[in-house]
Amino acid sequence: MVFKKITLIGTSEESFDAAADDAIDRAEETLQNVKWIEVDELGVEVANAPDRQYQAEVTVAFELEE
Amino acid sequence: MVFKKITLIGTSEESFDAAADDAIDRAEETLQNVKWIEVDELGVEVANAPDRQYQAEVTVAFELEE
Amino acid sequence: MVFKKITLIGTSEESFDAAADDAIDRAEETLQNVKWIEVDELGVEVANAPDRQYQAEVTVAFELEE
Amino acid sequence: MVFKKITLIGTSEESFDAAADDAIDRAEETLQNVKWIEVDELGVEVANAPDRQYQAEVTVAFELEE
Amino acid sequence: MVFKKITLIGTSEESFDAAADDAIDRAEETLQNVKWIEVDELGVEVANAPDRQYQAEVTVAFELEE
Amino acid sequence: MVFKKITLIGTSEESFDAAADDAIDRAEETLQNVKWIEVDELGVEVANAPDRQYQAEVTVAFELEE
Amino acid sequence: MVFKKITLIGTSEESFDAAADDAIDRAEETLQNVKWIEVDELGVEVANAPDRQYQAEVTVAFELEE
Amino acid sequence: MVFKKITLIGTSEESFDAAADDAIDRAEETLQNVKWIEVDELGVEVANAPDRQYQAEVTVAFELEE
Amino acid sequence: MVFKKITLIGTSEESFDAAADDAIDRAEETLQNVKWIEVDELGVEVANAPDRQYQAEVTVAFELEE
Amino acid sequence: MVFKKITLIGTSEESFDAAADDAIDRAEETLQNVKWIEVDELGVEVANAPDRQYQAEVTVAFELEE
Amino acid sequence: MVFKKITLIGTSEESFDAAADDAIDRAEETLQNVKWIEVDELGVEVANAPDRQYQAEVTVAFELEE
Amino acid sequence: MVFKKITLIGTSEESFDAAADDAIDRAEETLQNVKWIEVDELGVEVANAPDRQYQAEVTVAFELEE
Repeated sequence: MVFKKITLIGTSEESFDAAADDAIDRAEETLQNVKWIEVDELGVEVANAPDRQYQAEVTVAFELEE
Repeated sequence: MVFKKITLIGTSEESFDAAADDAIDRAEETLQNVKWIEVDELGVEVANAPDRQYQAEVTVAFELEE
Repeated sequence: MVFKKITLIGTSEESFDAAADDAIDRAEETLQNVKWIEVDELGVEVANAPDRQYQAEVTVAFELEE
Repeated sequence: MVFKKITLIGTSEESFDAAADDAIDRAEETLQNVKWIEVDELGVEVANAPDRQYQAEVTVAFELEE
Repeated sequence: MVFKKITLIGTSEESFDAAADDAIDRAEETLQNVKWIEVDELGVEVANAPDRQYQAEVTVAFELEE
Repeated sequence: MVFKKITLIGTSEESFDAAADDAIDRAEETLQNVKWIEVDELGVEVANAPDRQYQAEVTVAFELEE
Repeated sequence: MVFKKITLIGTSEESFDAAADDAIDRAEETLQNVKWIEVDELGVEVANAPDRQYQAEVTVAFELEE
Repeated sequence: MVFKKITLIGTSEESFDAAADDAIDRAEETLQNVKWIEVDELGVEVANAPDRQYQAEVTVAFELEE
Repeated sequence: MVFKKITLIGTSEESFDAAADDAIDRAEETLQNVKWIEVDELGVEVANAPDRQYQAEVTVAFELEE
Repeated sequence: MVFKKITLIGTSEESFDAAADDAIDRAEETLQNVKWIEVDELGVEVANAPDRQYQAEVTVAFELEE
Repeated sequence: MVFKKITLIGTSEESFDAAADDAIDRAEETLQNVKWIEVDELGVEVANAPDRQYQAEVTVAFELEE
Repeated sequence: MVFKKITLIGTSEESFDAAADDAIDRAEETLQNVKWIEVDELGVEVANAPDRQYQAEVTVAFELEE
C-alpha cells in the first residue's frame, strides 16, 4: 500500500473552511481514494480579487492503485 | 504559578472552529483553570469518516493548583 | 516596487475567519494598498475574556508608496 | 470524538524500529484506543549505556473515552 | 537538467527501512531516472491495520527527460 | 526503559533561570526520576502581572517505572 | 479557482538566478497558467558535475483549469 | 481588539535577562498597552563590543487603540 | 543600545541580488543606522508582472536613536 | 565541562540503523568521550550507488578534554 | 573574508548566562577572532549531575585567517 | 563511506553567488573530496563594511578518507 501526496490551494469568498473544501472537492473530482488532507497555510488575497479571497493550501493524501 | 500544556485533537462535521471548540469543551470538562489554547495543526479526515471530519490539533494551557 | 509586512492579531467572539477579518479591517483603516495576508497562528483566549476569544495572528503585506 | 497526544521515548539495544515498538508497547499497556504514533526524533545514547542504546521519541495519539 | 520531486508514503508490516523501500519500489515502477529520496516523516498506524503498519513518508527526486 | 515528556511553564518575578527552576521544582514534587529538561520558549508577561513575570516553557523528561 | 503546486530543481553553471529560471522555463513548457514560484533551497553540486552546478529547488504554483 | 507585534533587539553587558528587559524598557517608553513579549533569539556579540554584549531579540505585543 | 527589525520585500526584473538591494535602498532612504539584513524568502512573480519579477523578502535591522 | 558537536553522514547498503552505526563507528575511531548522537536526516542514494545506499546524517556530541 | 561556525555546549551550576559564557571561554582559548555566538538550545541536566546543570548549546562564529 | 559537514560563511562585495563561491573556494583549499554545499542563510552586512557585503552561510559536505 502506497500513498501519494499533492499540494493544492483552494479558494473561497466565504471562509477558510470553504477554501479547504474547495481543494478537497477538486481533488475528489480527479483522484480516487482520497484519504485525508493537512492544512499547510491559510491566507487572504486582498488586492487581486474583487472581494477578500480566503485561501487554504492543503496537502491531499490518496492511495495509489496497485 | 506553574502552567501545564497538553495536546488534544478535536473533531467536527461542521468546521475548523467547531473542531477547536470540541477540544476546548473536553478540556474544560476535566481540567480546571484552562487559560488559552494554541492551534497546532488543521486537517480533514476524508476516508475513515462518514462525512468530512474537520480536525483541530490544539495545545491547551491550564494553571496547576498549588 | 517595495512591499512592507507587519504583524497584527485580530480577535473575534465568533470564529477564526472573523478574527482574521478583524485584523484585515484594521490594516485597511490605516494602510493603503494592502495586498494579501498570511495567517501565522490561530489561538483561543479562554480565561482573560468573558467568552472564548478567537485570535488570528496575521502578517499583512502592503505596497509602499514611492 | 477527541484524541489526546502524549510523548514517549522508547529504547532498544537493537534498532530504531525496536525502540519505537518499545514506546508503543508501553503506551498500549496503559492506554486504550491507541490509534497511531509519529516519530519526532531518533538518537543513540553512547556513553551512559553499556551498549549503544537506540532511542525513538514518539508522539502517541489515542482516542479519549466519552 | 531539471529534477522533479514527488511525495510518497510507503508502508510495511516489518520496519521503517522496508517502508522506505516500498515507496522507492513504487517510484521506480513508474518513473525513470530516480536519483535519491529524503525521509520526511516516520510513523506507525496502530488502529486501522491488522498489525502495526510502519510508514515512511519520502520525497523522491528524479530527473526529467529533456 | 521508557521515558515520558510533559510540558510545563514556570514563572518568576526575577529571571528566566528562576522561571525554569520553578518548572523543575514543580516537576520534582510530583514526578519521580526526572532526568532533564529542554527549554522550548522564553517570554515575559507584562500586562496581566503586577511586575514583569518571566516565563520559561520547558519539556520535562522522566523515566517511567516498569 | 484552485491552484496546484509542484516542486522542481533547476540547474545552471552560472548562478542561482539562472538555476531558478531553468526551473521556471521547464514549468512553462509543460504547464499553463504558471503564477509564481517560491525558492525552497539553494545548493551547489561540486563533485558530480564538470563545473560547479548551481541548483535552485523551487515550488511552482499554477492555476488548474476548471 | 487588535494587537500589533514588533521586533526589537535589547542589549546588555550583564545577562540575557537584562537584555530582554532593555528591549521591554524601550518598548514601554514609546508604546502604550504593552502586553507581553516572546524571546525569538539569544546571542552574544564578542568582537564588535568592548565587553561581551548579551543580546535578546524579542517580539513585543501591544494593543492598538481603537 | 536597542535595534529594531522590519520586514520588506524588494523587487527586480533582473536578479535576486538586485531585489535584495531594492529593499535595502528603500530602507536606507527612510531609516538611519541600518546595520544588516537577513534574507527570509526568495520568490518570482510570473503572472502578475510583465516580465518575471524577482522578489526578496528581507528583515532589516537598524539601531534606534536614544 | 564543554561538549562539541559535529555532523557526519554514515552510509550502509543494509539499513538506516547500520548507516547511523557507520557514523558512530567513525566518530569513535577519531574522538574520545563520544556521548550521544542525534539523527538529523535519513535518505537513500539511488542513482550514484550500485545498490540503494541508506544514509543517516547525525550530530555527534563529545566532551572536550580540559 | 570567510567565517567558520562550530557548535559547543557550555555548562554551569549557576545559570544559563554562565553556561553560555563557559562555551565562549572555551572557544576563545583555542580559536582566534571569535566574532559572535548564537544560542541554539537551553536545557538543564537533572539526573546525571550532582546539582542541576544548566546547559547552553551555542554556535560560535570566528573569522578564518587567510 | 562517511561524509562530514562543516559550516562556513563566504562574503563578497558583488553578489550572493560570489559569496557562496567564496566559501566553496575556501573549503576546496583545505579539504579534499568536497561533494556539495547547501545554502543555509543569505544576508547583507551594511554597517560594518565599506560597501554592502553579501554573505552566504553554507554547509559544505566532503567525504572523509578511510
